[in-house]
Amino acid sequence: VKVSELARDAGVSVATIKYYVREGLLHPGRLTSATQAEYDASHVERLGLIRVLRDVGGVPVASIGAVLDAIDDTRLPLWETIRTAHHSLALHPAPEPVDDAPGDVTTAREEVLQYLVTRGWDIDDGSPALGAVAEALVAARELWGPTGVDLFEPYIETVDTMAGEELSYIDDSHGKSATVQQVIVGTVVFERALVALRRLAQQHHSNTRFKPR
Amino acid sequence: VKVSELARDAGVSVATIKYYVREGLLHPGRLTSATQAEYDASHVERLGLIRVLRDVGGVPVASIGAVLDAIDDTRLPLWETIRTAHHSLALHPAPEPVDDAPGDVTTAREEVLQYLVTRGWDIDDGSPALGAVAEALVAARELWGPTGVDLFEPYIETVDTMAGEELSYIDDSHGKSATVQQVIVGTVVFERALVALRRLAQQHHSNTRFKPR
Repeated sequence: VKVSELARDAGVSVATIKYYVREGLLHPGRLTSATQAEYDASHVERLGLIRVLRDVGGVPVASIGAVLDAIDDTRLPLWETIRTAHHSLALHPAPEPVDDAPGDVTTAREEVLQYLVTRGWDIDDGSPALGAVAEALVAARELWGPTGVDLFEPYIETVDTMAGEELSYIDDSHGKSATVQQVIVGTVVFERALVALRRLAQQHHSNTRFKPR
Repeated sequence: VKVSELARDAGVSVATIKYYVREGLLHPGRLTSATQAEYDASHVERLGLIRVLRDVGGVPVASIGAVLDAIDDTRLPLWETIRTAHHSLALHPAPEPVDDAPGDVTTAREEVLQYLVTRGWDIDDGSPALGAVAEALVAARELWGPTGVDLFEPYIETVDTMAGEELSYIDDSHGKSATVQQVIVGTVVFERALVALRRLAQQHHSNTRFKPR
């Protein structure tokens, strides 16, 4: 199909398609003349993945490239592709440069890692998520005084159960690319839902407790 | 204390303090001469709150102003202050302009609202979080086919329980400002920990399932 039809099918503008091709996120169409190219179902599929990562995941364009590279690299074993792609996903809220207490966060990061490894988790000590938990722990201590990683135990229990269930739905019979897509998109879609639902639940309980009937 | 001491106590730079005063996030010090001002404990406290919102919450400076305004407005009843402040907090990942299917999202938003209200939740139909759940639902449908809001039921159950417990720890005997701070900071700190822990749990289960022993 022509670029205008591809744009319509994928629900994006022609300018967006040209931008993605320039940025290397989308493979170029097959040239049929000096000014026209032919696109196929693989382009529609890739555009759908980019859109979910961008709109639902809020992943910046630069990180989308890294995720797609990990999916396309046929030499990486599956678990390593998932790890790489997972690390490339932006963690929201993004950590901003902290102008103090880096020592506290470094120590807290080590505590979090030890706690989870002792609990039997097989995790990578370079994961950006470890730093995020450490920062939250440091903030909790500044606000409410000394506390251990067990402050988060109810959450740890819950996410452990949920992640186990979610991974068990993954069908890895359609090749690495499809499996990685499922894992990443599932991460992004359910994470967004989880955070938003938690906000709504807080609103409900705040209203129940503080709003006059 | 002088601005240099305030900067040291609060762990931020003098330039940052001046920026916050200019932006109206921090009340000015008491002028003791044409070029010097005196700062007190209220400034340290406010800087601590701003830092947590910014660094842990990733809340943009513009939204921090709205949150602080809601806290400072003595006319608003507590539950309304919490609602206002809550809505001002950025929802991560931030929704980007979606260039298609707004109709689907509008319909999905209504479905989500109905589902939660039927479940007994007292929530505001203008909440940005409702839109985020709707977007996640639309994405899930595009990816995995038709599904209802009950797709998220395990999460709904979990966040309902967790939010109820968290709100019950809130001590509202120290005035509105302190209560709102506890609710907001708790939202931000625990949300960050929850998202990061979920990523780590996924990594663990992905490694367990796909990584060769």
